[in-house]
Amino acid sequence: MQYFSVADAQACILQHTQRCRHERVALHDSLGRVLAEDVFANRNHPPYDVSAMDGYAVRYADIAHATAEEPVSLGVVDDIRAGAMPKCRVLAGKAARIMTGAATPEGVDTVIRVEDTEADDEHQVWIRAIAPQGANIRPLGENLRKDTMTLAKGTTITPGVLAILAMVKQSTVTVYAQPRVAILATGDELEALDEAMDEEKIPDANSHALYAQCKALGIEATMLGIARDNPIELRAKLAEGMGYDVLLASGGVSVGVHDFVRPTLADLGIGMHFWRVAMRPGHPLAFGSHESGARIFALPGNPVASMVCFEQFVAPALRTMMGHQQIHRRTVAARLTHDIKDRAGRTHFVRVTLRQNEHGYSATSTGAQGSGVLMSMAVAQGLLPIPADATVMHAGDVVNVQLLQEMEYQADAGVEC
Amino acid sequence: MQYFSVADAQACILQHTQRCRHERVALHDSLGRVLAEDVFANRNHPPYDVSAMDGYAVRYADIAHATAEEPVSLGVVDDIRAGAMPKCRVLAGKAARIMTGAATPEGVDTVIRVEDTEADDEHQVWIRAIAPQGANIRPLGENLRKDTMTLAKGTTITPGVLAILAMVKQSTVTVYAQPRVAILATGDELEALDEAMDEEKIPDANSHALYAQCKALGIEATMLGIARDNPIELRAKLAEGMGYDVLLASGGVSVGVHDFVRPTLADLGIGMHFWRVAMRPGHPLAFGSHESGARIFALPGNPVASMVCFEQFVAPALRTMMGHQQIHRRTVAARLTHDIKDRAGRTHFVRVTLRQNEHGYSATSTGAQGSGVLMSMAVAQGLLPIPADATVMHAGDVVNVQLLQEMEYQADAGVEC
Repeated sequence: MQYFSVADAQACILQHTQRCRHERVALHDSLGRVLAEDVFANRNHPPYDVSAMDGYAVRYADIAHATAEEPVSLGVVDDIRAGAMPKCRVLAGKAARIMTGAATPEGVDTVIRVEDTEADDEHQVWIRAIAPQGANIRPLGENLRKDTMTLAKGTTITPGVLAILAMVKQSTVTVYAQPRVAILATGDELEALDEAMDEEKIPDANSHALYAQCKALGIEATMLGIARDNPIELRAKLAEGMGYDVLLASGGVSVGVHDFVRPTLADLGIGMHFWRVAMRPGHPLAFGSHESGARIFALPGNPVASMVCFEQFVAPALRTMMGHQQIHRRTVAARLTHDIKDRAGRTHFVRVTLRQNEHGYSATSTGAQGSGVLMSMAVAQGLLPIPADATVMHAGDVVNVQLLQEMEYQADAGVEC
Repeated sequence: MQYFSVADAQACILQHTQRCRHERVALHDSLGRVLAEDVFANRNHPPYDVSAMDGYAVRYADIAHATAEEPVSLGVVDDIRAGAMPKCRVLAGKAARIMTGAATPEGVDTVIRVEDTEADDEHQVWIRAIAPQGANIRPLGENLRKDTMTLAKGTTITPGVLAILAMVKQSTVTVYAQPRVAILATGDELEALDEAMDEEKIPDANSHALYAQCKALGIEATMLGIARDNPIELRAKLAEGMGYDVLLASGGVSVGVHDFVRPTLADLGIGMHFWRVAMRPGHPLAFGSHESGARIFALPGNPVASMVCFEQFVAPALRTMMGHQQIHRRTVAARLTHDIKDRAGRTHFVRVTLRQNEHGYSATSTGAQGSGVLMSMAVAQGLLPIPADATVMHAGDVVNVQLLQEMEYQADAGVEC
C-alpha cells in the first residue's frame, strides 16, 4: 500500500480544499472569523479635532514662554465638555477649558493638560508649563478617514479589529462561513460516553477529542455517534456524514479493517486520495472526497495518533475553509536537551515540553512516545517532527517545534516533514 | 489625586478577587475551563494488555532468531479482532493474528507487526524479523490506572485533557464557574451601534471591544447599553451592574467627569479603592467593590486605553475568578530595533510588532502611540511596558514584551511596571 509523505498528504488535502461561502453574522458573533470583504470607513473619526486631555485649549504663541515661575494668564471664554461643541472662537490671550474627547474650538492649536495649569476662578487660568505646538490634539480622521479602506478582506477579527468594525457601524459583518463538520466513531470495541461502563470495552475518547479540537478552532461539530462494525450501520452513518462539509471518521474506517469498508466508501461515491501517511503516530490516515463536495478524513483509532493527525491535516484544511492564511501550527526554534534516536522511513512527531529562558526555548521529550499514552498529549506543549530521513538528533541541536497548547498559526508549515 | 503604580493597582485588584463557586457543566462545555476537583480513573485503560500494531502475537523465545533469510514458521491458532477477546492460550510454536487494540492472548509476550510477517494461509505464518521482547504490547493501565488521580484540580481543560475526561466517563465535569460580567458605556457623546449615524458623535467602540475581550477569555458578557450623562440614568445602570460579579463601566465614570459620579457610586454602596493608575495609555482607571461582592472597573473612554487596561487589570481578575493560575499575558524577551524615549513617572505600554528569527524576537513600535490610534491596537502583536522610572531604551536592548494576539497566559506578570 502506498504511503504518502506528510508534506504530500498535506498538499493533496489542500488541493481538494476550498474556502467556504460568505455569510453575514452579527458583530458579536464575528470574533475569530475572517473578513470576506474589504471594509471602508463610513465616517471620519474623530469627526473633528478633539482634545486628548482634560485641560485648556490655547494658542501656542500665547503660552510659548510659560514656566512654573512665570506662568501665563489667559482669560477662559468657554467650557467644552465631551460630546458638546465649542460655543465660540478663541482669540489671542484667551483659552477654553476642555475635556478629553471634546472638539477643540477655532483659533487654538494646542491643549495644555490640567495638571500644568491653575485656575483662579471660572474666568482665568494660569498656564504653568508648555507643551509642543499641536500637543494633545487628535486631528480629524486620525483613527478613520471617511471612504478609505480600513480593514482588508482576509483580516482575522480580533478584539481590536472588532472595535474598528463597531466604529464604522458594522452591526453585521461579511465573513467566510465555517465548515459544517460531523464526527463519527467506529468500532465494536467502543463504549459511548453515555453508555454504562463495561470494563472490558474501550471508552470512546476520540470523538470527544476531535469535538474539542474543532471547538478550539471555533467550530461546533455535530456528533454522529458510534457506527458498529457492520456494513449497513456504517453505510448509513457515512451517508449522513456526506451531508456535511467535512466528516471526521475515527477508528476502523481509517485502516479499512473490515472487508466491507472500501466497497462501502466506493459505493457511496467517495473517492479516496490516500490511505496511509508515513508518520508516527498516525500512519493509518485516509482522505477522500465525495461528489457532493464533502470531504472525509478517516483518522486513526488511537487517540494520540488521532489528535496529532488532526493538527497536521484536519486543522489546516478547516482553517483554509474558514478563510485563514495562517493554517499551520506556529513553530519556534528550540534546543534539544537530549539525544533522540529514531527509525528512518516515517516522520516522527515527538511530544515535547518546552522551557524558555533568555537564550530561547529548549525542548524535552515527554517520555514514553507510545501512541497509547494519552496523558503525554495532555501535557505536551509542542510536537517535534523528526523528518523521515533522520535517524538521530543530538542534545544541543536546534529544532523547529510546533506549539500545541495555544491557538497560534502561521502561513507555512515551518518544519520539514 | 493619588496615582497607583501598575503593580500596586494589580495587587489591589487581586486582593479583592476570589475564585468563583464550582459548577457542573457538560463535558463538551468544559473546554477552556478549569477543573475544580481532582479526577480519578474509574477504570484501567487499556483494560488488558493490548496490541499496539496489526500483526501476530507470539512467544519471544520462539522468534528470537528469526531473520528475512531464515524466517520462523508458527501455527496460527486465533484471529483476534479489536474489541474481541482471545479464544485460547498461545502455546510454544504457535501465534495469534491480532489487530491493533485487541487483547493479547495468554502465553504471548511480544507482537510482530504484519509487515515483518508472511502468512501462508490462515493457519501458518512466517516471522521474518524480530522485535524486542515485549514490543508492541501496551500493558493494562498504561493510560489510566483505576482509582489513581488522573487530573488534578486546577488543570485547564484542553482538547487532550477533555479526551482523558471522556475516557473516565465524565459526561459532566466540576469546574469553576465563570464570572457574570456586565458592560456599560457612559457619555452623551456616544452613538450606539444600532443608532442612526450622526457624524458629529463618537461611535461606541469600547463596549464592543470589551465584549470581544471577555469573549476571547470564554466569557459571554451582558451589554447594559449606554448611560447618558444624568444622575438618574447612571444610578439605574450602575445598580443593574451591581447584580453581576463584575461591571465594566467605560467612559466618564472613570474620571468622575461629572460631579454626580462619585456621590452616585457612594450612595449605591460602592467603595472605590483607587481612581488613577500611573500609566499611559490609560491613567483614568478606577476600581471599586460593592457590599454584594460585585466589583466595578471604571475604564478609560478611549478605546486603546480601555483595551490596554483590560489586558493589565481586568483579564487577570477574570482569569483568577475562573480558577486559572496563569493570569498574566505571556511575555517573551525581544530585542528593540530602535531607541524609545519616554517621560518618567508613568509606565508606558508601547504597542509593538514582533519579528522572529533564529536569534529570537525583535520588537518595533507600531508608530504613533497616541491613545487615539485604534488601528495600532488592531495591528499590535505585543505591548512593551516601559517602567515608570525609565526615560530611554536603546536599540539592541533586550526587553520583555507581552504577547497580545493569542490567548497565552503565565503565572507572573514577567514585566516591571
